[in-house]
Amino acid sequence: KQTNKQKTIWKQSFRSRRLSTVDLEEDIDPVRSRPKEIPHNEKLLSLKYESLDYDNSENQLFLEEERRMSHMGFRCLEISRWVICGLIGVFTGLIACFIDIVVEKLAGVKYSVVKKNIEMFTEVGGLSISLLLWVVLNSAFVMVGAIIVTCFEPIAAGSGIPQIKCYLNGVKVPRVVRLKTLVVKVCGVICSVAGGLAVGKEGPMIHSGAVVAAGVSQGRSTSLKKDFKIFEYFRRDTEKRDFVSAGAAAGVSAAFGAPVGGVLFSLEEGASFWNQMLTWRIFFASMISTFTLNLVLSVYHNKTTELSSPGLINFGTFDLECVQYSLYEIPLFICMGAIGGLLGALFNLLNYWLTIFRIRYVHRPCLQVMEAMMVAAVTASVSFAMIYLSNDCKPLKMDNSEEYPLQLFCADGEYNAMATTFFNTPERSVRSLFHNPRGTYNLLTLGFFTLTYFFLACWTYGLMVSAGVFIPSLLIGAAWGRLFGVLLPNKTFIKPIWADPGKYALMGAAAQLGGIVRMTLSLTVILVEATGNVTYGFPIMLVLMTAKIVGDYFIEGLYDIHIKLQSVPFLHWEAPATSHWLTAREVMSSPVTCFNQLEKVGTIMDFLSNTATNHNGFPVIVQATFGMTCLFLLCGLILRSQLIVLLKHKVFVERAHSRLHQRKLQLKDFRDAYPRFPPIQSIHVSQDERECMMDLSEFMNPTPYTVPQETSLPRVFKLFRALGLRHLVVVDDVNKVVGLVTRKDLARYHMGKHGLEELHLAQM
Amino acid sequence: KQTNKQKTIWKQSFRSRRLSTVDLEEDIDPVRSRPKEIPHNEKLLSLKYESLDYDNSENQLFLEEERRMSHMGFRCLEISRWVICGLIGVFTGLIACFIDIVVEKLAGVKYSVVKKNIEMFTEVGGLSISLLLWVVLNSAFVMVGAIIVTCFEPIAAGSGIPQIKCYLNGVKVPRVVRLKTLVVKVCGVICSVAGGLAVGKEGPMIHSGAVVAAGVSQGRSTSLKKDFKIFEYFRRDTEKRDFVSAGAAAGVSAAFGAPVGGVLFSLEEGASFWNQMLTWRIFFASMISTFTLNLVLSVYHNKTTELSSPGLINFGTFDLECVQYSLYEIPLFICMGAIGGLLGALFNLLNYWLTIFRIRYVHRPCLQVMEAMMVAAVTASVSFAMIYLSNDCKPLKMDNSEEYPLQLFCADGEYNAMATTFFNTPERSVRSLFHNPRGTYNLLTLGFFTLTYFFLACWTYGLMVSAGVFIPSLLIGAAWGRLFGVLLPNKTFIKPIWADPGKYALMGAAAQLGGIVRMTLSLTVILVEATGNVTYGFPIMLVLMTAKIVGDYFIEGLYDIHIKLQSVPFLHWEAPATSHWLTAREVMSSPVTCFNQLEKVGTIMDFLSNTATNHNGFPVIVQATFGMTCLFLLCGLILRSQLIVLLKHKVFVERAHSRLHQRKLQLKDFRDAYPRFPPIQSIHVSQDERECMMDLSEFMNPTPYTVPQETSLPRVFKLFRALGLRHLVVVDDVNKVVGLVTRKDLARYHMGKHGLEELHLAQM
Repeated sequence: KQTNKQKTIWKQSFRSRRLSTVDLEEDIDPVRSRPKEIPHNEKLLSLKYESLDYDNSENQLFLEEERRMSHMGFRCLEISRWVICGLIGVFTGLIACFIDIVVEKLAGVKYSVVKKNIEMFTEVGGLSISLLLWVVLNSAFVMVGAIIVTCFEPIAAGSGIPQIKCYLNGVKVPRVVRLKTLVVKVCGVICSVAGGLAVGKEGPMIHSGAVVAAGVSQGRSTSLKKDFKIFEYFRRDTEKRDFVSAGAAAGVSAAFGAPVGGVLFSLEEGASFWNQMLTWRIFFASMISTFTLNLVLSVYHNKTTELSSPGLINFGTFDLECVQYSLYEIPLFICMGAIGGLLGALFNLLNYWLTIFRIRYVHRPCLQVMEAMMVAAVTASVSFAMIYLSNDCKPLKMDNSEEYPLQLFCADGEYNAMATTFFNTPERSVRSLFHNPRGTYNLLTLGFFTLTYFFLACWTYGLMVSAGVFIPSLLIGAAWGRLFGVLLPNKTFIKPIWADPGKYALMGAAAQLGGIVRMTLSLTVILVEATGNVTYGFPIMLVLMTAKIVGDYFIEGLYDIHIKLQSVPFLHWEAPATSHWLTAREVMSSPVTCFNQLEKVGTIMDFLSNTATNHNGFPVIVQATFGMTCLFLLCGLILRSQLIVLLKHKVFVERAHSRLHQRKLQLKDFRDAYPRFPPIQSIHVSQDERECMMDLSEFMNPTPYTVPQETSLPRVFKLFRALGLRHLVVVDDVNKVVGLVTRKDLARYHMGKHGLEELHLAQM
Repeated sequence: KQTNKQKTIWKQSFRSRRLSTVDLEEDIDPVRSRPKEIPHNEKLLSLKYESLDYDNSENQLFLEEERRMSHMGFRCLEISRWVICGLIGVFTGLIACFIDIVVEKLAGVKYSVVKKNIEMFTEVGGLSISLLLWVVLNSAFVMVGAIIVTCFEPIAAGSGIPQIKCYLNGVKVPRVVRLKTLVVKVCGVICSVAGGLAVGKEGPMIHSGAVVAAGVSQGRSTSLKKDFKIFEYFRRDTEKRDFVSAGAAAGVSAAFGAPVGGVLFSLEEGASFWNQMLTWRIFFASMISTFTLNLVLSVYHNKTTELSSPGLINFGTFDLECVQYSLYEIPLFICMGAIGGLLGALFNLLNYWLTIFRIRYVHRPCLQVMEAMMVAAVTASVSFAMIYLSNDCKPLKMDNSEEYPLQLFCADGEYNAMATTFFNTPERSVRSLFHNPRGTYNLLTLGFFTLTYFFLACWTYGLMVSAGVFIPSLLIGAAWGRLFGVLLPNKTFIKPIWADPGKYALMGAAAQLGGIVRMTLSLTVILVEATGNVTYGFPIMLVLMTAKIVGDYFIEGLYDIHIKLQSVPFLHWEAPATSHWLTAREVMSSPVTCFNQLEKVGTIMDFLSNTATNHNGFPVIVQATFGMTCLFLLCGLILRSQLIVLLKHKVFVERAHSRLHQRKLQLKDFRDAYPRFPPIQSIHVSQDERECMMDLSEFMNPTPYTVPQETSLPRVFKLFRALGLRHLVVVDDVNKVVGLVTRKDLARYHMGKHGLEELHLAQM
């Protein structure tokens, strides 16, 4: 516990340090501000996060446009928003279909070839050749996937969920919503799933949906140099963020057939902006997305009238008699939740160490590709070994759901049970674990499978391939859950309702996934929707809640770990509980570069070019005289991007008369430049022009939000989070600017083991 | 379209009017500010709304307490919150059980008696006596219900959903969350359902849950004069609101067995405060509530291990073969949505006229009781007539689900089909309409039933009895939906999948309910959860969306109509689209009563007692001198309630030295007074004490949020809505107070047919 005296010392040290590092809002040498234990690598260093701005882009021109707009104009905008959401849903659904069909085809070809090969060599005894074939096939797929990711778009690695979480939180990871990223992501995920890695194709769908949304809503593609001249109104951060959240929801919806879960995911990650109409639109996008997927896949599989594939992963139908649970099972479910929390924490801890190791030693592209290939080879070998060593033979039924039953050393008419889990796409394995009748797997099979898949999945997450962690988590959990279920009736009193190990497999899957990703409401709903039955709602909630509480005791969720490792200035829901004694005065950057309402071009150029004062927002001040006293009062806020557009178009006061002939600077000019504003180095201003003046009053945000210096950190935090601010001006009693609070100033505080701690964050 | 010139005229008229009515934030004569077409009645006049305060109660004492609090302290608070949410769930579930069991018992007795009587008189031909018996029984129940509501707690009338919407929005309808209200509500709803009115017991559950939450979270009952001295930290609006939203969610959850739907309902109505942990807690309360209900009812019905009654209403299990829908049915569903929207709009319009009629002519308690009894008598008579005139006889099956099959004039072994819908609790009738096999009802039965029940339900809603509109809406919709389904196959090409009219009954129910209440995401989820099957998610969403779009074209949702008729200053999600040209200067109240930091007690007493300046928040100013100029700068904001506590405890500067011996005024004193602060009239100050000074700086909120005068209305609105403010201080360039924006100033603008219009609101 910190005493008040300690707090005072802290406060002083904060203040002095803040004053010395002054106003380096951006481009600080990131090495200096990175925690010591995490070494830098070139990839991470090259990332520079941008903070999104939901408020201050509302400059004068924008306000005037809105004032002029009629009732009909707003109605048209509203209709456009619905159309865009529909399009987002359709495109996201189509991408999901594409991934699904291609993966099924490729995996089908691969498994058929290997199966034939194994069958050929089982008799004659040269199975090492089969192993080699399998290893080579897997490595080849993964190599292609890893190469496109590392060479073309490293940001497309992983599931993309941490990046989308950051985007919805207000931090833009560079290039995260570009078309190129989408293409690389889609190809990458196909390769890695087809390559037999312990990964899923569901996580990347969320990222894909977000990219689709960011693209469609802007009515143009900068990469393709194509501007459709539509939806220009939506070219600003606030609107784009809303659409991206719809896209993420559509992605979840397509991945799991869970439209409500998708909406909740978006809201859980970025809900400072909830609004009934927006939610309804997000839901619409989700519904359209799952419907499109359903329709296309049904047509593809010639079951047009059935509409039975709402998502990429399908948990299958649980029979009505086996979905029932009895009161006595509830403690068992809670127990499973605790196991899931523990295993999840272990998974996250191992992955955390692995990621630090990777940041330190594995940062060259060739090394990364080689690591990915190695994992693929090991995965194939381990699977093969497990299948080879297993002697769990089951009779082959006529209506068998296994697509590739391997006979191997089993008697005729039998197949190897271990192969049904390893020699298959993970989605099918999950379904088998949920639905295959009691006795399909023996205990050893399940135990070994859990153990090996746990370490394989842990090793795989974080490789430079596009892949998600949802399905591997579900698979691990389903395996030990089924084990749990199979073990139960022998040791305790038996009831017919307990007879279904599939139910325990489902609970185990929920527990494991909850223990790893630590999502709450949205995950409950996603799992309920994927199960297709609300009866399990209560036990799934219990399991997830227990898993989260137990897991949180040890370590954070997997996505949060990765966000923290990348030093993203992520704002949580609330300020740390014990930060009430900090005020705006301590956390703000000070002194701040301010501009006069009428400012010399040269001064502006100098400030913008000076990398030491690399701010993104500048308070605009005006002089006021009270008797003998002369005060500089805040009258607005202008953004770096806006200044650059002004400089580019040379909107100088001296040119005002000649501008009468010219076109007046319009909102369109700002929108055309959005979101890739040119750097200040590309602006050239002659020596004469440096002496000109610029009138900022027309282009600044005339009413920025302000707080007094004494405002406590939680209040500042609340304002920042609720309104989605990028800059918050701190003023004194007479409205004089004394500092500027940015996202980074707030995100640096977090609760550590010993009270409040300061984080080191990447540059913004 | 309004031209700019018109806007300027508007602006000027606004400003002059605002300046003349000056700062009457409260207690304006409500007759003057009520729209002309709606006459006043005493009941409405006696209501005075309070605005909840989520921000400015954070005064200095509170901030200091939070600063002193340790990490462990915050953890304890968090655990308390979970415990409270659990308790809320348990109590809400128990109340639902109580209502359910008592209603079933009473209705069972009533229907048995009437059935016996009818059977007795069918042969001998004196059915008018049976009718009379039925009428008398119904009227008696309803009379009791209406008398307790009108005499003891008129606010307990209706479903309570509009009131809870207002509470979550930030407006407190007086006495809405008191224990007395809960008792009256529960008894009232039992009487009105048992009395056979066209009402449901589900809506009132939401209100009941909210009251439970408000009670449990405060750790005391003012009505019972019992203070448990626990949960004192939660005695402020922000915390209480969070718990009330959990209570409302628990209520929905218990009513429909829809925990996720409950959470979404709470969020849809008051989501400016979404926060992951809070949501998770709300979800926990919901889950506990439905689980408690399930457990208790299962034990009650001797089916302990089944847990098959998650909610008060149960849509029953839809068979897997009949839940499928085909692509061709989607246009039909959309069509049904449109019908639902139209019928819903008609329902709302009729009810709107009826409510105006009631406000004008039916405002004496005896008239209200008589009207309720009349409706009960008419309901019974109409039902009887319909049953009597119907000759739709169906064979009685052995496993018949009808509890009270009436033979009447049917042959032996047959029963009257009309009676299954009229002679039953509405919940059972809904279930029959969903699940009875094709051919149970003939077309005429369904048609007549829809028609009569539509008007009966419309007449019933708004009576002075506790009752909800969900079940009647579902019933009307299910009836015409089934009619729709039955009519279909004869006219179009037949497919086996179309054979189930129960599916169309469900869609009709969704359409009708959506058309009346116009909820969006939450209603979709509630219906999906009540159905127990996610397959219907997409069609239900389509139906609800269509119903909302069609209905909104004509008239608002039923709850919104009632909120508007009561002139509640309700803040919608966003400012009206075309209000960008209004600024804080035009909407604010000005001039404002300000206090000095060191203020004379007499001045404060005078201002607080003066009914003409009946503010609730007062900016505190301090004098600053700049050269020759003397400025009064804003330094804080203090609430009326805080001043009253200060005056009550006589916290005067002159007494400071004697106060050293006394106990210092603590946060506890404010908390003990919350939420029923004494009126100013109860404070007595001697003439000597009037000359004393009070130092407000210790008790005010030192950092109130402010905006400059030029801030546009949508920006002010956003700030207000996002942070849940009660007062927003408007300042000029040098931080001088120029006005105060309150909830009422913002709620008065709305989009009418001809652009922006001003509403007349009740006093606050």
